[in-house]
Amino acid sequence: MNTLQSHYLKAKEVLPGGVNSSTRFNKAIGKPFYVSKGRGSRVWDIEGKEYIDMCCAHGAGLLGNAHPAIDGALRRAASIGYVNSFETEYHEELARRVCGYIPCADRVRFCSSGSEATLHLIRACRAFTGKEKIIRIEGHFHGYHEMIYIGGQPPRSEFGRNRSEPYIESPGIPKEYAQFIIPVPYNDREALAAAVNDHAHETAMLIMEPVNFNCAGITPEPGYLAFVRELTRDNDIVLFFDEIQSSFKKSLGGAQADFGVIPDVCTIGKALGGGLPLSAFCGRAEIMDIFQPVGPVQHSGTFNAHLVPVLAGLAFLDEAARPDFYPSLRSLEDRFHAGIDAIIHDYGLSMTVTHHGARFNMLLGRTEPALRYEDTFCHDSRLFLEILKSCWERGVYFHDYGGGPAHHGYSIKHTNDDIDRVLTVLHDVLYIYQNSLQMHAEAMEVL
Amino acid sequence: MNTLQSHYLKAKEVLPGGVNSSTRFNKAIGKPFYVSKGRGSRVWDIEGKEYIDMCCAHGAGLLGNAHPAIDGALRRAASIGYVNSFETEYHEELARRVCGYIPCADRVRFCSSGSEATLHLIRACRAFTGKEKIIRIEGHFHGYHEMIYIGGQPPRSEFGRNRSEPYIESPGIPKEYAQFIIPVPYNDREALAAAVNDHAHETAMLIMEPVNFNCAGITPEPGYLAFVRELTRDNDIVLFFDEIQSSFKKSLGGAQADFGVIPDVCTIGKALGGGLPLSAFCGRAEIMDIFQPVGPVQHSGTFNAHLVPVLAGLAFLDEAARPDFYPSLRSLEDRFHAGIDAIIHDYGLSMTVTHHGARFNMLLGRTEPALRYEDTFCHDSRLFLEILKSCWERGVYFHDYGGGPAHHGYSIKHTNDDIDRVLTVLHDVLYIYQNSLQMHAEAMEVL
Repeated sequence: MNTLQSHYLKAKEVLPGGVNSSTRFNKAIGKPFYVSKGRGSRVWDIEGKEYIDMCCAHGAGLLGNAHPAIDGALRRAASIGYVNSFETEYHEELARRVCGYIPCADRVRFCSSGSEATLHLIRACRAFTGKEKIIRIEGHFHGYHEMIYIGGQPPRSEFGRNRSEPYIESPGIPKEYAQFIIPVPYNDREALAAAVNDHAHETAMLIMEPVNFNCAGITPEPGYLAFVRELTRDNDIVLFFDEIQSSFKKSLGGAQADFGVIPDVCTIGKALGGGLPLSAFCGRAEIMDIFQPVGPVQHSGTFNAHLVPVLAGLAFLDEAARPDFYPSLRSLEDRFHAGIDAIIHDYGLSMTVTHHGARFNMLLGRTEPALRYEDTFCHDSRLFLEILKSCWERGVYFHDYGGGPAHHGYSIKHTNDDIDRVLTVLHDVLYIYQNSLQMHAEAMEVL
Repeated sequence: MNTLQSHYLKAKEVLPGGVNSSTRFNKAIGKPFYVSKGRGSRVWDIEGKEYIDMCCAHGAGLLGNAHPAIDGALRRAASIGYVNSFETEYHEELARRVCGYIPCADRVRFCSSGSEATLHLIRACRAFTGKEKIIRIEGHFHGYHEMIYIGGQPPRSEFGRNRSEPYIESPGIPKEYAQFIIPVPYNDREALAAAVNDHAHETAMLIMEPVNFNCAGITPEPGYLAFVRELTRDNDIVLFFDEIQSSFKKSLGGAQADFGVIPDVCTIGKALGGGLPLSAFCGRAEIMDIFQPVGPVQHSGTFNAHLVPVLAGLAFLDEAARPDFYPSLRSLEDRFHAGIDAIIHDYGLSMTVTHHGARFNMLLGRTEPALRYEDTFCHDSRLFLEILKSCWERGVYFHDYGGGPAHHGYSIKHTNDDIDRVLTVLHDVLYIYQNSLQMHAEAMEVL
């Protein structure tokens, strides 16, 4: 039998770093987490050890592993014969349901990944407005491509310069691409109003996560989203909500429904495909009809809206539309957060756990939720990796995103017992690290 | 029952143009081709009419529709429980097999679409060389993203300027992105040598299709690829073969094996997933190890190398590695081209049909294969659409890509009878249009 370590050494021979996604190298355990099987809330590694899955495919796995609805979708795809790259009546059905659930969606197009969705929608916003610049929010994440993987999450050492020279987030992205990016701090109305005042004439869109899951789970301050909505409308800037992560986590309508602020366009994804590769972009008809064959903008691809994920998407929506689906997730959310908040309170821990629906973030080094990106510099990545590793040793898998304050969650297949087990493990682990956390918090105060 | 037309009107309400990919609007028939079922070489539209499928998912459907090997892969995925975003032992197995088949591949990474593959590999080439410009070949296609959807296929009216001001291929792509693109004509050693002479110091890569399937199926002249190999090696330019379309069409090793010229890196895809969304990029270890966590370059994504397409990829390779697979495809290729060449000869038609493995192109207006992009301006798109529509009316589905001289093909499930039926239909249809073709050819000669 391969161990995680022996398989890692083998996989590295043919896959850079032994993985197909850089973040699948798990810094907490010093190697990738190779899996052999999943059932409901559980996964087993290739050594046969069982874990409660608190990664849930980074938010795509809202149905848990091996959900029978997905088995049904795959059997249906087989009976149809796959017919790749052809449209079917199922495509229209899925599109119609999405347009029914997502408030801003008059029309929609489906593709495979979140990065593809933001790429094509950015292009549409530029063509629609005839403008090219993008106002973005620091800390927010919108995919791994050159159009927007700039200025989002600069390292602390580069943070001071980020607003004048947006930080290039990977080697290999030409610095010239940064000329289109205007980063502003989150939850800061004055800074946003100033950026709009200076750049409205050349700005195609404001892109943002309505809940900043990709950095500490920062939520919008009351009234901020309504302010953003009004400011962009008044200045002919397209308001673009990136709901790849926030869609379907708390409701069928996404964060735009949860907060009651409707953007012009949005991306949705991850959970939409029931765990299969599916994302979408949607919005007002006049913007979406910029795409060929109605308008002039190209959006094509052999695997766009592949029949298998489209049928899985219909199966997912059938599940999510059950009257008990969101109440069940809400009950897990309430149980988990009552529990973790009690642990934080009992130990007097300097940490905060924010949440929106079935997804939450853990941030070390402060007790109040962050308001903007720089508030997360208090996080201790090294200590956080030790905490995640200790949970892993106890059979709870939290994914590590390099030690940063990122997102975790549960699925509809997680039970109260699962949540209680996770809380017990966190209770035990945080007990071990409470002094380290305390020392870290004191060091933060000194700085 | 919905007709194609009535479903089109419904689908347009929720999908721009009624489709999820601009090119799925079929200009030949004036609407998208909505499909209800596929079996082997056949598809049925939603009106119940049967067609021989000569699109084959734009080259992804090398196994045909409803192949039992894919059914098996999906059942296996279900038994494992999908476990999305986790690496498994199957990922390493698929990577090892790809590295065994593709000559340039020391290491590989998998993603969902061809566009994703070229995007991430372009980034790697830039980071590896510390240079940013891209020499590309006119007529070649490398995906729908902003890094490279520039200067490839300018309309005839823009062609003259393409080498000084590379043509932006979609509205919404800022013109500043064109500064990195250096287009050169295909099969032109002097022009390439001049571009390398002028730009080697700032050029990261030469990207090219070894067979230009995406425009008239232009093949490299004898010695051209070897010349390209030597020139790039001597000038520290990464040689990047985009084999999304050419891989697996004629052999397990791709066009690099077919022609015996090994690039530094390549993309592979389409057929690789057996019809499911799978692509990959691979190359020399020192370039591929630029990716995190080994090197500094980001390549991540929730749906990269999803377990379902990875298992479908293993199933595809099992089929393609059977000793009779490529001989069977070769026999279909020989039969089809003997037949179509005879029709062209008998009628004295001014058209040429080029091929490489299981994929071919039809170009109107000349009898000799094109050598470079501008040679394809003789093509008559309007007439070609009429030809495709007439085939469609007779039960043979050739996909239309806007009327241009693009690619078609067959699968391992096509039979000799299928090929003969397609030839009979082409015989009848080209008989109808032979005078139009003749008049077009004469008009071309006058110009």
